[in-house]
Amino acid sequence: MGMSGVLRPGHAAIKVLDLDEAVHFYTNVLGMLETGRDSFGRVYFKAWDERDHNSLVLRQSDRAGLDFFGFKVRDEASLDKLESNLRAWGISTERVAAGEMLATGERVRFESPSGHLLELYAEKKHVGTPMGNRNPDPWPQGLKGIAPIRMDHSFLAGGDVAKTEKLFTEVLDFYVTERILLDDGVTSAAVFLSCSTKSHDIAFGLHPEPGRLHHVSYRLESWEQVLRAADIMSMNKVSIDIAPTRHGVTRGATVYAFDPSGNRFETFSGGYETYPDAEPIEWTFEEMGSAVFFHERNVDPLFFETTT
Amino acid sequence: MGMSGVLRPGHAAIKVLDLDEAVHFYTNVLGMLETGRDSFGRVYFKAWDERDHNSLVLRQSDRAGLDFFGFKVRDEASLDKLESNLRAWGISTERVAAGEMLATGERVRFESPSGHLLELYAEKKHVGTPMGNRNPDPWPQGLKGIAPIRMDHSFLAGGDVAKTEKLFTEVLDFYVTERILLDDGVTSAAVFLSCSTKSHDIAFGLHPEPGRLHHVSYRLESWEQVLRAADIMSMNKVSIDIAPTRHGVTRGATVYAFDPSGNRFETFSGGYETYPDAEPIEWTFEEMGSAVFFHERNVDPLFFETTT
Amino acid sequence: MGMSGVLRPGHAAIKVLDLDEAVHFYTNVLGMLETGRDSFGRVYFKAWDERDHNSLVLRQSDRAGLDFFGFKVRDEASLDKLESNLRAWGISTERVAAGEMLATGERVRFESPSGHLLELYAEKKHVGTPMGNRNPDPWPQGLKGIAPIRMDHSFLAGGDVAKTEKLFTEVLDFYVTERILLDDGVTSAAVFLSCSTKSHDIAFGLHPEPGRLHHVSYRLESWEQVLRAADIMSMNKVSIDIAPTRHGVTRGATVYAFDPSGNRFETFSGGYETYPDAEPIEWTFEEMGSAVFFHERNVDPLFFETTT
Amino acid sequence: MGMSGVLRPGHAAIKVLDLDEAVHFYTNVLGMLETGRDSFGRVYFKAWDERDHNSLVLRQSDRAGLDFFGFKVRDEASLDKLESNLRAWGISTERVAAGEMLATGERVRFESPSGHLLELYAEKKHVGTPMGNRNPDPWPQGLKGIAPIRMDHSFLAGGDVAKTEKLFTEVLDFYVTERILLDDGVTSAAVFLSCSTKSHDIAFGLHPEPGRLHHVSYRLESWEQVLRAADIMSMNKVSIDIAPTRHGVTRGATVYAFDPSGNRFETFSGGYETYPDAEPIEWTFEEMGSAVFFHERNVDPLFFETTT
Repeated sequence: MGMSGVLRPGHAAIKVLDLDEAVHFYTNVLGMLETGRDSFGRVYFKAWDERDHNSLVLRQSDRAGLDFFGFKVRDEASLDKLESNLRAWGISTERVAAGEMLATGERVRFESPSGHLLELYAEKKHVGTPMGNRNPDPWPQGLKGIAPIRMDHSFLAGGDVAKTEKLFTEVLDFYVTERILLDDGVTSAAVFLSCSTKSHDIAFGLHPEPGRLHHVSYRLESWEQVLRAADIMSMNKVSIDIAPTRHGVTRGATVYAFDPSGNRFETFSGGYETYPDAEPIEWTFEEMGSAVFFHERNVDPLFFETTT
Repeated sequence: MGMSGVLRPGHAAIKVLDLDEAVHFYTNVLGMLETGRDSFGRVYFKAWDERDHNSLVLRQSDRAGLDFFGFKVRDEASLDKLESNLRAWGISTERVAAGEMLATGERVRFESPSGHLLELYAEKKHVGTPMGNRNPDPWPQGLKGIAPIRMDHSFLAGGDVAKTEKLFTEVLDFYVTERILLDDGVTSAAVFLSCSTKSHDIAFGLHPEPGRLHHVSYRLESWEQVLRAADIMSMNKVSIDIAPTRHGVTRGATVYAFDPSGNRFETFSGGYETYPDAEPIEWTFEEMGSAVFFHERNVDPLFFETTT
Repeated sequence: MGMSGVLRPGHAAIKVLDLDEAVHFYTNVLGMLETGRDSFGRVYFKAWDERDHNSLVLRQSDRAGLDFFGFKVRDEASLDKLESNLRAWGISTERVAAGEMLATGERVRFESPSGHLLELYAEKKHVGTPMGNRNPDPWPQGLKGIAPIRMDHSFLAGGDVAKTEKLFTEVLDFYVTERILLDDGVTSAAVFLSCSTKSHDIAFGLHPEPGRLHHVSYRLESWEQVLRAADIMSMNKVSIDIAPTRHGVTRGATVYAFDPSGNRFETFSGGYETYPDAEPIEWTFEEMGSAVFFHERNVDPLFFETTT
Repeated sequence: MGMSGVLRPGHAAIKVLDLDEAVHFYTNVLGMLETGRDSFGRVYFKAWDERDHNSLVLRQSDRAGLDFFGFKVRDEASLDKLESNLRAWGISTERVAAGEMLATGERVRFESPSGHLLELYAEKKHVGTPMGNRNPDPWPQGLKGIAPIRMDHSFLAGGDVAKTEKLFTEVLDFYVTERILLDDGVTSAAVFLSCSTKSHDIAFGLHPEPGRLHHVSYRLESWEQVLRAADIMSMNKVSIDIAPTRHGVTRGATVYAFDPSGNRFETFSGGYETYPDAEPIEWTFEEMGSAVFFHERNVDPLFFETTT
């Protein structure tokens, strides 16, 4: 009862082409807080309002993209139950040992029909926020860069969105909040899924190649902070993909940009609260432009195609 | 798994001294949408982004205050399970017939240790939003008054907050997000509880009399909308209790005011996202002022004492 | 001494292709207040915070564009002095009789080197604001559409920007706040001029054809109102040219769109306060993109070329 | 013609009880930039968007309060003309030598009927902004504390407001934008004066003692920045006088607080643009509360009485 099973998006593990450059970028421009480095050379970050040890992990590689994306579940019992449900549904799982990621317990890893490596885990060390838990200030002074509140969601691109949606709704107990339809009026070009009251915790979109990262999204407090984020990006010559605008889907306000390795990220505010008893919102093929960018009412196919 | 059991605060039933005056106020100043009237003379309202038929019910009475406060649960099975759990915990329940409230299914009613009449229900007719579910606009044009997004939570005052907290955490699977302590360092003067990722879905505070209403809160989109709300209140000579400020608790931004019958209400924005695995934030007795009003850092005892 | 001579941009007279459609648009979408119609069939509007009778005049024509743009001067003595200064500088002037425009005194009309019909006038009837002058509310309830505070400035495109700049600085006592340079590092592609503490009251840009209207700009209160403006445009299927972003020049936040006749307009907030003793800001040719759109850091030549 | 004579409020010279504490406060909490110290031990500050060398000067003293308040005039000719006008009007003036204040030219000093030491000056060294004058960013990164855009105005309390108003309107060519009336319906309890398009550049209020400082005001960009200012004050245990609200007068949004010596200051955003041809807004005695604090609709007499 209550919130059980999957609680939230927990960590995004991202491949970058130049680790030093990436660490500088995520620290000083995006404004994440570095929380550790491991023996594999991976660098861990959290956002200031997150209590867990990390939500972003960078690894140097010869190509950009997503290593894996993990969800925090409520407890070990949930982890076991979800693993057995995944297997019953026909998904192979493996366990990654506790400690393989810093401050993180055992992970159940599986591949989604969309070709992404996903994970569930029940334990991640609470390191708390800079404000502490006793008479806390509303936000910490001395942050750098954009300084998002938390890692919010990811949009993953790949094949078989329909089966991935079924996996998330039937096994992981997410619910669909919105979908964008293809011109057949039936197939989802993109589907937005929530395991909470957030307008989305994960989204999937069709892409010719499996396992692609469209973007990881970081939450900001307000539309004014979205402007500030875009300002900071330009001041730092960040490659901005889409300047401040509103999504039709989720109503959220957004700026899209690329990290130095070409991984797209989003700084995002707003979006409604919703519940599993709400019927999904549907966007028709003709209104796909408004669905994605409510003001432009048009979306360049490159926006979908460009992934890492 | 996922969101089950109690989903959200669903309806507040409020007693008013002059129904016509109250309907005018809630329609034109607060900006709720009237959705029906029943044979008992009650008037039903929803906020524009709510999909259910009603979240506020007004009834004329010779004294102001709360009739009852209801929570939407996910389904009939949850309703049955929660009722049997309540009884097992020693709480008497009764069923109110479907249809007794407009567009609302059978309700399980019980009294909290704090002396409030609370309800659970699984069914309320979906009437949707003015924007619809297909290619929706982000918000509807032509709203009146303050026009909150949704009814957000209620703060109830009464006796035995400790036992009420236990009821909500042990039986209804809420979790404590924050508490304000008395000078004994142990007793909660107020406790804030969530059944979602919201910073609070319900709160209870100590009061010498049981069953008191401190306020019903309505969500706004932004701090700028909080200013606009206060402006509209002043333009309409609404009795404002507390002008725009930030809470320490929840970080939310707030204006408190009174409806024409003296029922306090709040227009509220912000507040963080949280999860059941977060440890509660504690405010010490010495910092109670900052907990309640972060800028004033002081709270007049009348703020707690004045209830309906 | 003090503010004398030219006080402010006062009226924009615009040609539209279909007057009824235009009146509907400017009333219900942009949210100007109609204040009168004259015997020539012209329709007059003001913004809600303007005290003068009109700031926008629409006239039906077989082509879109600017009829003329007028500046309010402090008094008749200023009008006479400025007229004689214009003539001494070699600019022909003519007087348009008081009353030719509704509620407007005698106008001194002249053509700028850029090929625009400009006017000065000392009298326009004060009709006041909806809030009145005694214990006023901060803003009026019941407005429609975007509802700008006031008409802010115009950007006019044509030839001989250099001579036009000299006219405005030497004769009309404007001062240059910013300029965007061509690749010769000397010639201004665009120049921004102020007669007040506003970051611009008028601007001129090079264009192959004389007398072109790039846009009339309307002031909004905040960046959140800029978002709302873009939302309202999309809800009403207005042709949006540029979605919310920030200018490098003036720092202002902006949305550009077209009225139903294709006349570009801007809804604008922010921009700094400046003074005639400040040295102009210069944008180099290489940074013209950032100068115009600070986040995109690129400007499509069509943005300059498309005028009416 | 154009903007001549007095351009703007230029510098506030403030007495503080502990210079080190004050420098720490104005640097790290208010977020002004220190620009120099002189042989008298005075410390000079500017706000980030000001181009002149200083707008705030602190001097240690055994009592808090205002030393003097200065206005920048357009040029030496204006300075001479204004001085001779002051004398003709019966005001004694004296010249303070160039260089007596750092980076500042000769000043014409006089005492207002309200008992304040005021100054005019034509020269203050341009040190520019951190963003520079060539392809500037919209704001500088790395600021500390509240970081206002500029010193905006001062509210001075003392005797003979009526004669002071005449001095400012008849000699210095300011114009009255608003006044709050006493219960005789004639006498101004407070008068707000502008020499620009700002809603006020200086204000005077009745006080039993002459030469009192009610507050110096610093401009912020937005209502969200007003919230942030109040947050920063509370985080730093600054004594807040009035938490975020809106003024009826000027419509501006405000937080009032005290520096460590007890000098009140304001962080302020908004306010309308106005012009010398606008009739003043009047607030009746009965609505004095709304005039000062539009939401509270009440003002504690201590708010006026407490001055330094």
